[in-house]
Amino acid sequence: MKPLTIIKIGGNIIDNEPKLAAFLEDFAAIEGKKILVHGGGKLATGIAEAMGIKQQMVDGRRITDAETLKVVTMVYAGYINKNIVAQLQANGCNAIGLSGADGNVIQSHKRGADTNIGTAGIDYGFAGDVDTINNSLLQSLLNGGFSIILSPITHNMNGQLLNTNADTIAQEIAKALGSIYDVSLVYSFEKSGVLLDANDDTTVIASINPTYYEQLKAEQKIFAGMIPKLDNAFAAINSGVGKVIIGKAEQLHALISGNAGTTITHD
Amino acid sequence: MKPLTIIKIGGNIIDNEPKLAAFLEDFAAIEGKKILVHGGGKLATGIAEAMGIKQQMVDGRRITDAETLKVVTMVYAGYINKNIVAQLQANGCNAIGLSGADGNVIQSHKRGADTNIGTAGIDYGFAGDVDTINNSLLQSLLNGGFSIILSPITHNMNGQLLNTNADTIAQEIAKALGSIYDVSLVYSFEKSGVLLDANDDTTVIASINPTYYEQLKAEQKIFAGMIPKLDNAFAAINSGVGKVIIGKAEQLHALISGNAGTTITHD
Repeated sequence: MKPLTIIKIGGNIIDNEPKLAAFLEDFAAIEGKKILVHGGGKLATGIAEAMGIKQQMVDGRRITDAETLKVVTMVYAGYINKNIVAQLQANGCNAIGLSGADGNVIQSHKRGADTNIGTAGIDYGFAGDVDTINNSLLQSLLNGGFSIILSPITHNMNGQLLNTNADTIAQEIAKALGSIYDVSLVYSFEKSGVLLDANDDTTVIASINPTYYEQLKAEQKIFAGMIPKLDNAFAAINSGVGKVIIGKAEQLHALISGNAGTTITHD
Repeated sequence: MKPLTIIKIGGNIIDNEPKLAAFLEDFAAIEGKKILVHGGGKLATGIAEAMGIKQQMVDGRRITDAETLKVVTMVYAGYINKNIVAQLQANGCNAIGLSGADGNVIQSHKRGADTNIGTAGIDYGFAGDVDTINNSLLQSLLNGGFSIILSPITHNMNGQLLNTNADTIAQEIAKALGSIYDVSLVYSFEKSGVLLDANDDTTVIASINPTYYEQLKAEQKIFAGMIPKLDNAFAAINSGVGKVIIGKAEQLHALISGNAGTTITHD
């Protein structure tokens, strides 16, 4: 199987212009087939505030009401996605930016108020949970030499756009393509990897398997915010993804070559 | 050559939700290969105002300063493009939305202050004039069964996004694909076609050739706002586009079948 690198970048890189530019230069230089999934960042919140749209957050998750959906569609699928694509093109990377609606590449359904994550009974509004990935379009674009840039906006095939978690999209794409390619999934964020001490960036755990993960959780050594990311990572590994790496966006090439960050492995 | 229908819709349809929904239903029902180029509409102006960004217009054209470019990128390439795509998917049309930066499909350059249209010496800001169309990506998507939805945001291959006239994009795309497909280019707008009396929608001119066009202009029978559209239409016809039709968006199928609107023909 041919290698495929799938990278998720978070909001803190997107919010920082020089960091984003450096990251995109590194991304452009990755050899072979690659997909970038980007999150949102603070820009959507800033624009919503400028437009007088109040932002409601529950458990660190945005409640996507109709006006907020408009803003995140504009910012994620428009401003952020197209600026990333234009910068990659300038770096010699033939990027193509898609939302989940484009070519029905990611179909989702509106999260029911009853199947919420976190506090019971929360209505997350126009939040989408992924149902299906359109492998054939992704494959045909990758074979055509394009690098695919996915924004975290999906749709339900009934005309409704839905705000969707970018970590989950990266995981679902990796799982869907795991039987076709030798997939490396990289979650890049602000820290150097999974840390034993959340405040000390030198305490990176080089690798975690399921047994060690259970032990770390039992000893409460895993920072709460990391648990959904790690659960996603193990779900990916258990569904045919070759390798999952978690680490600092600034160390992209070292992460891919296995010289930095935390690698998620089987037992 | 296989037929290809290229349709431009203007802002007045985009601004009107029920009209847009009806138009997209009609567009989805067009048989064969098709491309939709959409303009902007008033939404961008409304959002710019809500964000406190002053809009400067010269000769009916928007001056695209850096903040306005941000807004039009969000609104055109994000909100409008992705909502159109999601609605077409709901109508059974496998649409894929692109800006000019995606796959470098439309490369442009920033319009120089010296090569302005209209008043001398105007700097239109981040306005792009089209240089090249990437036929191979368009062809491969059309052959893959996708309908392509183009937003009027292009790029210069140096990382700069540029606001670009949608009429011009439709014309350039039609010209570029005119040697590969039997192209029908439809400019759909709020009027029933080119009118002899701008205030009487029943005075549609059924067809105009270059000789008749010169005569109409000499007699000042052409509404000034129509002249750039007609110049575009004749430029397309003279560059290998099979057919150009101008007419009302609500009559899409009649326009395509030649039973409504104004057809632009050779002498």
